[in-house]
Amino acid sequence: MMDEPKRTSVDIALIHHPVLGRNREIIGSAITNLDLHDIARTARTYGIGKYYIVTPYTDQQKLVGEIIEHWQKGHGSTYNPARKEAFSLVKLSESLDAVVDDIRNNQHRVPTIVTTSALTQDKGLAYGESRKRIESGEQTLLLFGTAHGLAPELTKKAAYTLPAIVGPTDYNHLSVRAAVAIICDRLLG
Amino acid sequence: MMDEPKRTSVDIALIHHPVLGRNREIIGSAITNLDLHDIARTARTYGIGKYYIVTPYTDQQKLVGEIIEHWQKGHGSTYNPARKEAFSLVKLSESLDAVVDDIRNNQHRVPTIVTTSALTQDKGLAYGESRKRIESGEQTLLLFGTAHGLAPELTKKAAYTLPAIVGPTDYNHLSVRAAVAIICDRLLG
Repeated sequence: MMDEPKRTSVDIALIHHPVLGRNREIIGSAITNLDLHDIARTARTYGIGKYYIVTPYTDQQKLVGEIIEHWQKGHGSTYNPARKEAFSLVKLSESLDAVVDDIRNNQHRVPTIVTTSALTQDKGLAYGESRKRIESGEQTLLLFGTAHGLAPELTKKAAYTLPAIVGPTDYNHLSVRAAVAIICDRLLG
Repeated sequence: MMDEPKRTSVDIALIHHPVLGRNREIIGSAITNLDLHDIARTARTYGIGKYYIVTPYTDQQKLVGEIIEHWQKGHGSTYNPARKEAFSLVKLSESLDAVVDDIRNNQHRVPTIVTTSALTQDKGLAYGESRKRIESGEQTLLLFGTAHGLAPELTKKAAYTLPAIVGPTDYNHLSVRAAVAIICDRLLG
């Protein structure tokens, strides 16, 4: 057996509603199976507390529940124990408010909400500064959007926003799975 | 239109054979559609030259060809021009030797082969040192394995190996999509 996972003061939420569509209209996106797997594995690697999957749709909640069940208690749990361990962080939630309530109930602290975006946003804070705040023990909730990004009603709840990830080019269309990995490595690696 | 992509001296190859299976036997793995998309987007972001998909299996080569075609010339190319741009880096190859030949033919240089692994390997070189070699213009080919990692016959061809990616925990089961993103960010971000 592995040791008890070392847990940082950081949680992650992947938002499926409200997010932006192609024309910046408010939409809800569908669950992507690999988002659950890849981000759970990244979260477990970097000591994330909980990885919340946020969707208000009952059919999508049912799907997420079935995937979690398979890897936590079903055939997947014995076939791949490392995956079971990653899935132990995954938690379903219906909204951002419900996530914040859950953290408050379990950690007895109100998290600082931090957003991430492929675009430049107000309230920007550099990765190094964010890292220092996390190292000082600040309870932090990182929000990631699916589709074309978080709706304004969510970004306005953030205490600060991390800068867009840029390489040596002007291309900024990373997958959310890649963005989560890079941001966890910058903040916690 | 975007500017001509800024190209670094780094190429990537995702190996589907020979790789290791669950019991460290040599196997060939199947193509995963999201590996093509996510890693192409990461590669384009970080200025990678070419992203080689390596498989000797003709049915798998046909599948890769169809996916590339869809995003380069088919409906996908007009539906999502940013994805078309990422897929312009994707190139099919039958073996590591064929990849090296292709780089030699096109860049007129023999690449330094660099492997990556979730396990500690011989010939380790720190990320900062690797980054300096790349910044000095060394033609570099980064190999990534699917399934349970690269077969020994490939790792022994490497000039050096990058250390396993670790966070604040002892869990080292990142997806290859996440590992590529983190390594590109460390070397080129």
